[in-house]
Amino acid sequence: MKKSLLAMALMGAFSGAAFAQSNVVIYGTLDAGIHKTSNSANTAIQEGGRDNSKLGFRGQEDLGNGLKALFHLEIRYEVDTGNIERSTRPLFQGQSRVGLQGGFGTVRLGRALTSLQETTTQFEPWSGMPNVAGFQTDLMVAGYRAAVSGSGSDPLGAAGNSGNRFANALWYNSPVFNGFQLNLNLGSKENNGLATAIVGRGTTVAPQYPAGSRAQAYPYSVSATYSAPGTMPQYAVYAGSERNSTEVKWHSVGAYYRPIPALKLMGSYGRQDMSHIRAINDTMKSWVLGANYNVGVGLVRFGYGQRDTDGEVKTKEISVGYEHNISPRTYLYLDLSQKKVPTSTAPASSNMNQNHYALGIHHNF
Amino acid sequence: MKKSLLAMALMGAFSGAAFAQSNVVIYGTLDAGIHKTSNSANTAIQEGGRDNSKLGFRGQEDLGNGLKALFHLEIRYEVDTGNIERSTRPLFQGQSRVGLQGGFGTVRLGRALTSLQETTTQFEPWSGMPNVAGFQTDLMVAGYRAAVSGSGSDPLGAAGNSGNRFANALWYNSPVFNGFQLNLNLGSKENNGLATAIVGRGTTVAPQYPAGSRAQAYPYSVSATYSAPGTMPQYAVYAGSERNSTEVKWHSVGAYYRPIPALKLMGSYGRQDMSHIRAINDTMKSWVLGANYNVGVGLVRFGYGQRDTDGEVKTKEISVGYEHNISPRTYLYLDLSQKKVPTSTAPASSNMNQNHYALGIHHNF
Amino acid sequence: MKKSLLAMALMGAFSGAAFAQSNVVIYGTLDAGIHKTSNSANTAIQEGGRDNSKLGFRGQEDLGNGLKALFHLEIRYEVDTGNIERSTRPLFQGQSRVGLQGGFGTVRLGRALTSLQETTTQFEPWSGMPNVAGFQTDLMVAGYRAAVSGSGSDPLGAAGNSGNRFANALWYNSPVFNGFQLNLNLGSKENNGLATAIVGRGTTVAPQYPAGSRAQAYPYSVSATYSAPGTMPQYAVYAGSERNSTEVKWHSVGAYYRPIPALKLMGSYGRQDMSHIRAINDTMKSWVLGANYNVGVGLVRFGYGQRDTDGEVKTKEISVGYEHNISPRTYLYLDLSQKKVPTSTAPASSNMNQNHYALGIHHNF
Repeated sequence: MKKSLLAMALMGAFSGAAFAQSNVVIYGTLDAGIHKTSNSANTAIQEGGRDNSKLGFRGQEDLGNGLKALFHLEIRYEVDTGNIERSTRPLFQGQSRVGLQGGFGTVRLGRALTSLQETTTQFEPWSGMPNVAGFQTDLMVAGYRAAVSGSGSDPLGAAGNSGNRFANALWYNSPVFNGFQLNLNLGSKENNGLATAIVGRGTTVAPQYPAGSRAQAYPYSVSATYSAPGTMPQYAVYAGSERNSTEVKWHSVGAYYRPIPALKLMGSYGRQDMSHIRAINDTMKSWVLGANYNVGVGLVRFGYGQRDTDGEVKTKEISVGYEHNISPRTYLYLDLSQKKVPTSTAPASSNMNQNHYALGIHHNF
Repeated sequence: MKKSLLAMALMGAFSGAAFAQSNVVIYGTLDAGIHKTSNSANTAIQEGGRDNSKLGFRGQEDLGNGLKALFHLEIRYEVDTGNIERSTRPLFQGQSRVGLQGGFGTVRLGRALTSLQETTTQFEPWSGMPNVAGFQTDLMVAGYRAAVSGSGSDPLGAAGNSGNRFANALWYNSPVFNGFQLNLNLGSKENNGLATAIVGRGTTVAPQYPAGSRAQAYPYSVSATYSAPGTMPQYAVYAGSERNSTEVKWHSVGAYYRPIPALKLMGSYGRQDMSHIRAINDTMKSWVLGANYNVGVGLVRFGYGQRDTDGEVKTKEISVGYEHNISPRTYLYLDLSQKKVPTSTAPASSNMNQNHYALGIHHNF
Repeated sequence: MKKSLLAMALMGAFSGAAFAQSNVVIYGTLDAGIHKTSNSANTAIQEGGRDNSKLGFRGQEDLGNGLKALFHLEIRYEVDTGNIERSTRPLFQGQSRVGLQGGFGTVRLGRALTSLQETTTQFEPWSGMPNVAGFQTDLMVAGYRAAVSGSGSDPLGAAGNSGNRFANALWYNSPVFNGFQLNLNLGSKENNGLATAIVGRGTTVAPQYPAGSRAQAYPYSVSATYSAPGTMPQYAVYAGSERNSTEVKWHSVGAYYRPIPALKLMGSYGRQDMSHIRAINDTMKSWVLGANYNVGVGLVRFGYGQRDTDGEVKTKEISVGYEHNISPRTYLYLDLSQKKVPTSTAPASSNMNQNHYALGIHHNF
């Protein structure tokens, strides 16, 4: 029987159905709850999550000889409003990457968490969740120092873009040799939507990075990890550096120690160098200590940390959280946190307490 | 064999594949057709749907002892342009909710149709479809009275947001006791993106709800239903109230009666109180009568209703529709409707006829 | 046992799970690589794709007697940034269509590639991929002549909308009779978001198409194809015409010839008539010759073409590409291309060479 050109094209498309369906995994997270933060911009009870909510699509294709092609597309959204994350972020804010995996390691292209920040989430007591009670966003990474224009991991991106991701980038993860692994991440010099100039060390009239600027040096992120082989006690360490597209640098080291399976102790130290875009107050240091403890179907999280930014009083944070697992994919949680933050008004040396309470449900699918 | 931290993280992610895939259901609706409405802003033949088009993801996890975790993420879009609904609405305009279900009922958090409006769709002759020929949007709910700034179910939301949904809210549906069920819905006081002030009972200089306002009272929506047990004839009744974030109130009652399986007769009455934001013309009343009749593979819909808004001539609408089922998931439809609407020009006492014709295909997957 | 109205509604929703899941196919493409184009707006190394990246959902329902309902929803996005295509295009930029297929052919409503452009992709050496090295966008279709306001297939659409698609349209593909097939596509006169007036043959004060304009004539796209039956050598020809909503017309003919299975030779000629919106320089002609040659697991693409626009020096392009298939769904590619383009500065008779290099990975799922 004769088929039309279009019919053949359609058939080709539809015959793809069988393999397509079997190679895509849909996964995700919904996190919703209520929270309240004193001395903040909004002190009323609000609805919102502790973790990022996700809807993802991923797959892999076996190419033979241990080689695989793999991809990941991850939508991020707000359960409480139904919007994409912050209403403005890219559809696949979680990540969009494609690449190959084999004996040589894993190579991927696209947009995702930087290599170093992907590593640090494993050394942070809230596992990198952006919750107010966690330490990744505010102390450990500090985006790298969100309040400074030109900081964050995507400073030449559109306003509101994530401070933890590289766009237009390449990722390489080495295989593990005797417990050691190397993770490399190289960005391009592309402008990613910068609409408002970054004054930096320039002037309003002649900003250091005018709107639409490209990077003058390649952004990169690198981390090395060592994970001790064998049984308990177990430990791992990491060290890494990152340079963003405005040449702000961030160096970070950390370790965790697991004396018994139920307990994980961890600590990290980071130092940020903003001298490329700031003449004064160009350094930020932070450290975080934490513990995770499994008790029956529960998990207790604890953390304490400080951030010391030049020219500011220290930020100090203490948090405790409890997760009650009601199934392998669902838990209820309670977070309590107190943060001493610099007051926004003079004198610059004063600070105030922000108390944070959160209660919610976290569901993976 | 030793695995890297990252490899373990990746494995964890991928091992989620098996359960993930089996727990997500993809579903949706595409509705496309052509329609024409005389005396409207656009009287030419247009392409468009009768129902909202949807692409949804939902799942549930059995937690044992009759307890379940469940989620729902529903994209809404326009088939004729490929855009998200109205080009501006949240990605998951349909709903984004997560919660638990058990002997105690169902508790969910997120954004969705209010409890009362979820109930009323079952007492409306077009099943709540927003079609011009239907009565839910224009007469029964009237959004609650779309033309009045501060009305609708999300008046402190971004411009163009749906007039039928609560964001940042909690839903509770009780179990059924002897045919009775209670549905509760409580919103937070959060601002949801209001960019343009609502003057209300204030002045342009001192609007009642400036841009960025929060609610002064908790929004809520509540409905109670009774469904008679047993066989034909069958009937159900409901009563409910809703208060939005600008304290506009809407009360509604209704019933349906099914003398034989093929016939459903229904009626509803609603009253809206806008006195919190309006000094005069603060009441709107409406009633709708309708019937659904199954004839072979066809379904006939009929409805008549009126809306009486203080200070306006009455709006009157009569509609008839026919659905021809060509499969359990697909039907073709024809809608004819005539609406007497107030003319936009003086005298305020005049009105004009809008004739509406629609023809299309409705496909569920 | 008695069930609540809501419980019944929920059950109805969930009982849809079984058939829903088995009727939706998820498919897509990720294309990512690096490229560099000399004498262009950005001459640095950039990350980006050769093909459009897609995430699609499609399905069909067997209605009996050879009749089917079918739908297609296709998200387009940028792998390198995680954004939807160009950050501004409709979510389902690929297509959103629903319709019926049977002995009479296929009828669909929605938004998609026009009928003629769907046909021409099979006669273009890069299979219609928008890659700089390809000929579809720049020479063959030329959008239809992207630089002219009012040109492209959706000139009354929102800024940045695709120049290859009709919104609010109907598609008909006939069955194949002795190798012949007819493809028809009819748009509506709706405005699709035009925010900036098209001056056309009017003046700035009285533009030919003010913002928000509707079409004065129905847009259409039509193609006829003939595909010779039997074995090698094999050939096919097409002819077609398109008229957009500002009455710019485009006529196109072409053929391909396959002397042996591994080789496909092709050519096309097109002529564009912009006289409805331009008083002078209203014609554009283009031709493209190309070849595809399979060699082992590789595919070589070659093409040469010219575009002759009234009042401009000719644009000339030569390209060669190589695809190395590492699996049925994944290939690596290399594209080299040189284009002579008019310089943007006077004298209008001068042109310059743009050299383009691209290297990447293309993965289907």
